[in-house]
Amino acid sequence: MSDIYDKIMDLVRRRGFIWPASECYGSVAGFIDYGPLGSMMKRRIEDTWREFYVVREGYYEIECPTIGQEDVFIASGHVKGFSDKMCQCPHCKEYLRADHIAEGKGVQGASTMSAGELASVLCTLPCPACEEVLGEVEVFHFNLMFQTSIGPGSQRKGYLRPETAQGMFTDFQRLLRFYRDSLPFGAVQIGKSYRNEISPRQGMIRLREFTQAEAEIFVHPQEKNHPFFPRYAEYRMPLLGIAQQQENTPAIETTMHEAVESGLVANQYVAYYLALTHHLLVTIGVNPQKLRFRQHLPDERAHYAEDCWDAEIFSERFGWVETVGIADRTDYDLLAHEKQSGERFAVFIPYETPRRERRVRVIANMGALGPRFRGKAKSVADALAEAVPGPDGITLRIDGEEVFISPDLYQVKEEEIEIPGEEITPHVIEPSYGIDRMIYAVLEHSYAEEMVNEEERRVLRLPPRIAPIQVAVFPLMNRDGLPEIATDLATRLKAKGIMAEYDDSGAIGRRYRRQDEVGTPFAVTVDYETPESGTVTLRDRDSMQQVRVRADTLPELLRSLVEGSTTFASLSPV
Amino acid sequence: MSDIYDKIMDLVRRRGFIWPASECYGSVAGFIDYGPLGSMMKRRIEDTWREFYVVREGYYEIECPTIGQEDVFIASGHVKGFSDKMCQCPHCKEYLRADHIAEGKGVQGASTMSAGELASVLCTLPCPACEEVLGEVEVFHFNLMFQTSIGPGSQRKGYLRPETAQGMFTDFQRLLRFYRDSLPFGAVQIGKSYRNEISPRQGMIRLREFTQAEAEIFVHPQEKNHPFFPRYAEYRMPLLGIAQQQENTPAIETTMHEAVESGLVANQYVAYYLALTHHLLVTIGVNPQKLRFRQHLPDERAHYAEDCWDAEIFSERFGWVETVGIADRTDYDLLAHEKQSGERFAVFIPYETPRRERRVRVIANMGALGPRFRGKAKSVADALAEAVPGPDGITLRIDGEEVFISPDLYQVKEEEIEIPGEEITPHVIEPSYGIDRMIYAVLEHSYAEEMVNEEERRVLRLPPRIAPIQVAVFPLMNRDGLPEIATDLATRLKAKGIMAEYDDSGAIGRRYRRQDEVGTPFAVTVDYETPESGTVTLRDRDSMQQVRVRADTLPELLRSLVEGSTTFASLSPV
Repeated sequence: MSDIYDKIMDLVRRRGFIWPASECYGSVAGFIDYGPLGSMMKRRIEDTWREFYVVREGYYEIECPTIGQEDVFIASGHVKGFSDKMCQCPHCKEYLRADHIAEGKGVQGASTMSAGELASVLCTLPCPACEEVLGEVEVFHFNLMFQTSIGPGSQRKGYLRPETAQGMFTDFQRLLRFYRDSLPFGAVQIGKSYRNEISPRQGMIRLREFTQAEAEIFVHPQEKNHPFFPRYAEYRMPLLGIAQQQENTPAIETTMHEAVESGLVANQYVAYYLALTHHLLVTIGVNPQKLRFRQHLPDERAHYAEDCWDAEIFSERFGWVETVGIADRTDYDLLAHEKQSGERFAVFIPYETPRRERRVRVIANMGALGPRFRGKAKSVADALAEAVPGPDGITLRIDGEEVFISPDLYQVKEEEIEIPGEEITPHVIEPSYGIDRMIYAVLEHSYAEEMVNEEERRVLRLPPRIAPIQVAVFPLMNRDGLPEIATDLATRLKAKGIMAEYDDSGAIGRRYRRQDEVGTPFAVTVDYETPESGTVTLRDRDSMQQVRVRADTLPELLRSLVEGSTTFASLSPV
Repeated sequence: MSDIYDKIMDLVRRRGFIWPASECYGSVAGFIDYGPLGSMMKRRIEDTWREFYVVREGYYEIECPTIGQEDVFIASGHVKGFSDKMCQCPHCKEYLRADHIAEGKGVQGASTMSAGELASVLCTLPCPACEEVLGEVEVFHFNLMFQTSIGPGSQRKGYLRPETAQGMFTDFQRLLRFYRDSLPFGAVQIGKSYRNEISPRQGMIRLREFTQAEAEIFVHPQEKNHPFFPRYAEYRMPLLGIAQQQENTPAIETTMHEAVESGLVANQYVAYYLALTHHLLVTIGVNPQKLRFRQHLPDERAHYAEDCWDAEIFSERFGWVETVGIADRTDYDLLAHEKQSGERFAVFIPYETPRRERRVRVIANMGALGPRFRGKAKSVADALAEAVPGPDGITLRIDGEEVFISPDLYQVKEEEIEIPGEEITPHVIEPSYGIDRMIYAVLEHSYAEEMVNEEERRVLRLPPRIAPIQVAVFPLMNRDGLPEIATDLATRLKAKGIMAEYDDSGAIGRRYRRQDEVGTPFAVTVDYETPESGTVTLRDRDSMQQVRVRADTLPELLRSLVEGSTTFASLSPV
């Protein structure tokens, strides 16, 4: 009774997509290796992400270290709050996620229970590892950051970052200058993040070291209309808002324009990235029937967030898996770093025309102050300039002492001053993608088994732009000069940037099956007509149809087939 | 007296190439951020590396975690041997690299001294931090791996990998199957590695977190001729062999073919990667006049290595910097993991025709053994099958006891057996690149200052394929529809995969200078002729020449200029 997960895991191990890490030493849960084909597919998905965020949106990528100093994660709240509740089984000594045990036995709301509440729930439940009843166990917090120390003598605590986002926040001032001090702007990062999970048991879904792609878009708090909103204004997709969840009604099929107008989505920025994310996920091969966008319920949403949605992808093994988060985080992150670092994380916004305001100004009478305060006269004068005059005089604090200044020592002038603009703390819109979960979802959704000529064909229907190998090149026979022509063709395709694989081993049918199984969208066969006519057959993975085409047109043809600007069905044979 | 290093550091910070990491908290030595332009340039260098190793060599890339379990680094020798000698200044408490202090004061051979020898050298030297004479200090070993623990309860030690190489070794068996069990094959990895340096003071040259690009090529120990050797056989470059270093004579200018023939380089594989590395480094913008290949001296070379070379790049600030290592590491790594893991890391090599050999075989006489040994008869028979008969009988060890078997209990048969092949442990050829050092070298070598029209022009002469921005697009004036045409042009170029930047701020001369400083090789200006004729001016960064070209030819033209298949000088104006 192996389900699709087992079949996929078998396939990806066997064919070099994904391997347990350092398997020869007994692999450790939560770590995986991307093998040759997996690594290639991962890179293509990351490049597609860049296509959306870097090329089209125009947000530059940055690359920050994975080790960060403690201050960063004190500011972000991870040192204090990034923990899971755990317990240790008194019988088998296994460490366990306390809420997962309760959830596994159908206890509602386990994820929001306190440690004490969980402990009282657990005492009658069996340990999922040894199946003994847990009895009285202590439930405690375990911080999920990997800790290390930087330099000798434990001089400095370091943490492996739990998300890439903080790098964009700590670089905010540099980024602001790079973007010439004007909003909106964005920065993105694709890289490793780390969570020291207590006992991860979900393969690629719950990794201790994983890849994130995150964008942090800094916007004016009062200007949350995305400049490119028309691109996705009419994009239609189902949204599962708070109301639909609470009332248990189906998702609402809506355009982004309507979603913002009706207030279902907080603003254009959030709606825009909901649509872009849908577009991106479907582009890489996620089945839209198994994709939903769910709004965080009030008790899930961070207190500071204005709106927050998850893209959830359905997996036959894991159910609905949170894969992308899209949030309007307001000014929370920048203010947190401002407080921790003592630096200012703000943007000066000039008014279109400077505003004029009347202000009261206190001007010291130096002739009188000098003799009275001598060495302190300058400090008193400076303090006066900032002071608000009372009816009878002004009380100042100078070097810790209270000093009363009578009205004869100063003059009050009312004047008009020009205010060129104001400093504001930008709000942050954050789309955050879990690349490994996306890869797993694409594998699961693209896997198919079908009977062809009474034989089972296993096929990964990967979109051509994601497939690790883009074209297979076969000689029909292993003689008569065909292998030489085919090898040469494969080399020429590679030189043009098309990932081609030459294969001359076994019957041609077997070679097709081998490529089907790893998702290669096209296969070219060099046969006995090739030397004479310069043509080859081109076979389509999904329809299994073949057409004859001129070999010298292949680089251009394959490029447009892979990009999607040509479809196989539209090809006419030579 | 700021040298070129200071000028470059100023430029790269100001213009968004490289920033101190988490600067707002006081940056920690050994960590840097790649800003928007630096990250783009880094990606282009990595992609060029892939072009050489993945596309042309055909070695697939894999991606392993940066956290590894302890066994991996026990096998690799890093747990025991990956350390530096350090001391702590008794006055200012600063931690210091002991050998660096001695070297800084001109002590010869400090890097190979023992801890005791170093301590006696240091006692009369001043602390480089506080300048007090160190006096009696303890010199001790500090392991350079960052350590952490995986899972709760310090269940398992983990280390941040000090090199990417180990992932290719621990995946050897999986890789071998992926490559269908035949040699040679290779795997590469580009990713983060970590060294917890004691007190790094050399900016980008000595980082605690850095990027490596490594290839591990598994070859038959007796077949070290590279299949593509002709590609580089006539490649000519200077080599500084052991003899030239010992005799203090200049490097030998030689072809790779001659270098192998004369025995200067151990084999074709090593020579091939020396040449490929030279080719690659020059392609990304390293000045060949400031590049040398130096063979490890016998006392530097690891005992197991058959040959080892460093590509060293000259920096005005840092002198000759080791940037790439190319080594024939023999079977050292695979045997080390074989020993530690208990698994077999070998390849079965079938003979072209199976060999026939005469073998002596001992066959137990079960009828006699049974009554004599009863329950142990089976063990005795199995042991006999493996035994070599003596003249009077055979002495076996069964369950720890010696048992003598007289000749009446067995028969000796001589027979011919067929041996289909043999198991061998492949040798490893390893080219290992430090990406961050390459980036620094390219920046330093491409930086120039020159007087143009009595104004100083700072320019990064980056090869077009490495430059972060490939083309700048300017409207000549900020009116009359020119900005709209230019914006549209920039968008169309980006859609074609060309990194274009639109800029309409300031005088045109200032815009050119801004792009020169970040190395943008080409600039397009939309002027008053554009709306009528559909032409624009295209300006070359290095020659500062301009030609008029048709705007609609730009995507193709720029692509070939960036790839290098067209030169600017060859362009004829419309």
